[in-house]
Amino acid sequence: MDNHEAVLKLLLEAVQANMSSTEKKEDADEIPVGISNRHVHLSQSDMNCLFGEGHQMAKMKDLSQPGQYACKETVTICGSKGAIEKVRILGPVRSKTQVEVLVGDSFKLGVVSPIRLSGDLHGTPGITLVGPKGSIQITEGLVVAQRHIHMNCEDAQRLGVHDGDIVSIEVNGARGGIYNNVAIRANDTSVLECHVDTEEANAMDINSSSKIKIIK
Amino acid sequence: MDNHEAVLKLLLEAVQANMSSTEKKEDADEIPVGISNRHVHLSQSDMNCLFGEGHQMAKMKDLSQPGQYACKETVTICGSKGAIEKVRILGPVRSKTQVEVLVGDSFKLGVVSPIRLSGDLHGTPGITLVGPKGSIQITEGLVVAQRHIHMNCEDAQRLGVHDGDIVSIEVNGARGGIYNNVAIRANDTSVLECHVDTEEANAMDINSSSKIKIIK
Repeated sequence: MDNHEAVLKLLLEAVQANMSSTEKKEDADEIPVGISNRHVHLSQSDMNCLFGEGHQMAKMKDLSQPGQYACKETVTICGSKGAIEKVRILGPVRSKTQVEVLVGDSFKLGVVSPIRLSGDLHGTPGITLVGPKGSIQITEGLVVAQRHIHMNCEDAQRLGVHDGDIVSIEVNGARGGIYNNVAIRANDTSVLECHVDTEEANAMDINSSSKIKIIK
Repeated sequence: MDNHEAVLKLLLEAVQANMSSTEKKEDADEIPVGISNRHVHLSQSDMNCLFGEGHQMAKMKDLSQPGQYACKETVTICGSKGAIEKVRILGPVRSKTQVEVLVGDSFKLGVVSPIRLSGDLHGTPGITLVGPKGSIQITEGLVVAQRHIHMNCEDAQRLGVHDGDIVSIEVNGARGGIYNNVAIRANDTSVLECHVDTEEANAMDINSSSKIKIIK
């Protein structure tokens, strides 16, 4: 009887150890999702034109990436076919103004917007921005964001990817599937999060508590 | 020399025959795409309430499926959180009113809409519709359309699928990927076309000239 109990105890321990390592592995592969709506990053000079010299942006809430935040301020963006009101400004200011829209917004504005990673603005179309104190016409900077995954270097090592890699991601559920051409953006300070826009989220029924996995 | 020429001619013919059969096979596997925006199918009695007794719907344009058409008429749909104006009516009338919205519309309306195939309305939420002559509150019928592929029985045989099958579809391009859980709807009269909504189309950069393929 002692022997039986000892064997049972060992078996139970082995099963529990195995379960916990499986659970840990699953958790370690899962990546939280951040869903971006259309938004604008402004340069200091463009901010001055739209909101007035010396205007201080009012932080509304911090975003998941360190130092990034949504402002209370919004602008209207105007293309040849239409305008979109109340487009959120994200801070802090950047060296160049960048307007990130949805594919559906492109149709509404009447401007074909290429799919680009943030900051890669060469050859992208311009657009008009209207603020409470003035309007500007940028000559380039209108993009649809390429889906991407922010992470730190430790995450990258654990997930077996490198900064600049292009991967696919898998989404489960009734509207699940796979998105190709997802860029890895790894550096020392970023927080692990996969960024898709609202159309990409809705098409796969992804919400802010969804998790995705990298597939290679 | 005669032998050489004869051999070359045979080789050339063999290569050309092979190329043409490969091309044909590729074409035969490709499926055109139809992109649906939010829309409403009305029952006769609901149409009478919204547009007045005896009102005749005005056809705006035929749709790709035989007998289906978009009407000039639109309605406003209203939920607890918000309203969406100018939602297109599709004809002809159906036995039950059905409102097909985008996932993004669900958030705007404040009503969680389940993902369903057309006609499968049991247990779906209701919504308020407002027309020029009156308003109605349907007790069920609000859905997000499940992606699906219409085809006739000959297409189904050629593509190796059956009515009711669930498949995945592959989309190429910079925003490409795979959508799972795509329903096959095969009957004698349908025209081959894969139906996705505007959010699903935009998320994969699909337009009305895109082609998709079934993967199993």
